[in-house]
Amino acid sequence: MKIKVAGTGLTKFGELWDKTLFDLAIEAAMESIKDSRYTVNDIEAVFVGNMIYGRLSGQNHLGAAIASILKIKGAGFRIEGACASGGLAVHLAIQSLLAGTYKNVLVVGVEKMTDASISEVTSALMGAGSESERKAGLTFPALYALMAKAHMIKFGTTRKHLASVSVKNHFHGSLNPKAQFPYEITEEKALNSPLISSPLTLFDTSPITDGAAACVLTSSNSGPGVFITGSAVATDTVDLSARLSLTEIAATKAAAQKALKQAGVEITDIKVAEVHDCFTIAEIMAMEDLGFCKKGEGGKYIHSGATNLRGKMPVNTSGGLKACGHPVGATGVKQIVEITEQLRKRSGKRQVDGANVGLTQNVGGTGATVVVHILQN
Amino acid sequence: MKIKVAGTGLTKFGELWDKTLFDLAIEAAMESIKDSRYTVNDIEAVFVGNMIYGRLSGQNHLGAAIASILKIKGAGFRIEGACASGGLAVHLAIQSLLAGTYKNVLVVGVEKMTDASISEVTSALMGAGSESERKAGLTFPALYALMAKAHMIKFGTTRKHLASVSVKNHFHGSLNPKAQFPYEITEEKALNSPLISSPLTLFDTSPITDGAAACVLTSSNSGPGVFITGSAVATDTVDLSARLSLTEIAATKAAAQKALKQAGVEITDIKVAEVHDCFTIAEIMAMEDLGFCKKGEGGKYIHSGATNLRGKMPVNTSGGLKACGHPVGATGVKQIVEITEQLRKRSGKRQVDGANVGLTQNVGGTGATVVVHILQN
Repeated sequence: MKIKVAGTGLTKFGELWDKTLFDLAIEAAMESIKDSRYTVNDIEAVFVGNMIYGRLSGQNHLGAAIASILKIKGAGFRIEGACASGGLAVHLAIQSLLAGTYKNVLVVGVEKMTDASISEVTSALMGAGSESERKAGLTFPALYALMAKAHMIKFGTTRKHLASVSVKNHFHGSLNPKAQFPYEITEEKALNSPLISSPLTLFDTSPITDGAAACVLTSSNSGPGVFITGSAVATDTVDLSARLSLTEIAATKAAAQKALKQAGVEITDIKVAEVHDCFTIAEIMAMEDLGFCKKGEGGKYIHSGATNLRGKMPVNTSGGLKACGHPVGATGVKQIVEITEQLRKRSGKRQVDGANVGLTQNVGGTGATVVVHILQN
Repeated sequence: MKIKVAGTGLTKFGELWDKTLFDLAIEAAMESIKDSRYTVNDIEAVFVGNMIYGRLSGQNHLGAAIASILKIKGAGFRIEGACASGGLAVHLAIQSLLAGTYKNVLVVGVEKMTDASISEVTSALMGAGSESERKAGLTFPALYALMAKAHMIKFGTTRKHLASVSVKNHFHGSLNPKAQFPYEITEEKALNSPLISSPLTLFDTSPITDGAAACVLTSSNSGPGVFITGSAVATDTVDLSARLSLTEIAATKAAAQKALKQAGVEITDIKVAEVHDCFTIAEIMAMEDLGFCKKGEGGKYIHSGATNLRGKMPVNTSGGLKACGHPVGATGVKQIVEITEQLRKRSGKRQVDGANVGLTQNVGGTGATVVVHILQN
């Protein structure tokens, strides 16, 4: 498969009190259309990735709503799969292009989270988990803490390993003007930050964020842009306790294998990746499950500096969910935007030299949904 | 295009206090897989149409959740576009098949509405409308009442015309064991029922319903089943007041033209149709906007008996949303199930003689999203 990312758009990520969800969606959308060689009139469908706006604000029907504001008469869809909503929206947009039904489509990932109370948002986010997890009083920090603890016990992963993910991603974020937290942190600061859910501290967790990301996808091969050459989705049980292992996300393996096969590349061909570091342990497991390192060695691998901007395999150059921010429905699209920018050599201070093949990994819940995309020049 | 509906499944529609959303989804899904020549292992992806379960119960992530319960390891998606969620799920499932990414997929439309209070459900349903409509205190009965009133003033449509939709659909529902209200009503009963929002009375409105519908779609041409030969989506403003006309749904016209063109048939070729009669006025406008009769004549057309089971153009043989029920996310899929059954001559007492080309029209909100499908033997 070969689908072109013809344009990208991204709002500032952060606590954007002065903007509505629609302001953000339209800003990213118009920027992506302007960046492409197309006009609004060329766009035949809009795929919106959004998880919880209906719950927080009462507004569903975002596909038609955003299409209508943009004056796109074609189709509008809202795709939801928890924090993988954005990646799923990209995947389904690609299907409509491969089908030949549409030629140029817009994908918008958007979330407006800071207008609601923290308890409302926490409760809404638990919609990504299972009923038994909600009844047990589990939250996502607690679920990932269970995975982190198991990983520590099984593989000797340490809190310093976890902290190294955060330190790296904050360094990357310090180079990204769109990042929610564009500043560096020290290992000491990460290790001494307040405990959220043992062993995870504040700096092991991604924040509550407002933001939008957009891309114009086309089945046309001409014009500037980069190609999506692999797009795969895999699922697993929503309930973490129903899995065979707490220390791997099987759906990441399945989706990655499929996407790499589609693209005809090996994991060793990847030069830059954006992965789903909702918690530091998630990035450690992603390294292992994607095959960048062996199972159990993700902590050491990241701690070694291999995934730093100037390392051999830069990961989360945007700052990741940790430092760039995590507007849940937007994240999967933001990953596509970041890798596209890297492959187009438009990443400024955080440009990865020789980036010509990139990967994104977007996770819903604790791994019930995983979407992997491969991008190439 | 030519995508086969290889199997269908449908639960009883109604107030199903003893069943959860998952019970309903799995019952319909397993029935549709059993009805097809495939097994669960052949299904590569699940497309779930659902509007408000996240809001009412806290559970999002239904794509993965339903895939996981069915032990489908492939992809899971939840598609939302208000009351058109089911139709949109069918449309996107078709795209994935046309793309060649998947060969056999499952579409499940499901909604569990009766476990929440009426005020919670009414509020959640207004997620299909606009913020200004919500702020104005408008509800869907009120919005459709505005359209009905405008239609009466402009075209002389009468309450008897409206009532004839309800009387017909209840007659059809009386022949459908799955219907929520499987009994006939008289014109007198409809006309004298309690006022909901003038001029619409209780029998002009569709009910709150639990239920699920499912179909197995395949890109294979072999085996039993019928073909979907047209699938189109159009959008309009979410806000009714932003439209040029209160008496037509422009997106119905646009989607129908596109779907008919894809299928290579004319509206006069259609032998049976399921349309979105969330309110009686909606079915009247659907007749006009789809082109079954001239604009303004929908009321007379239905009142004449033309759309009765034994009329020249039977519409809503399932009983429609009015009598069969309206579990919002399920409705668009149920329409596909009903037309498939008609084309396969499995509709028993409500079988339409010579049904070989059918149409479905699924509406989100007051017409911000419309999905039209054409099915053929």
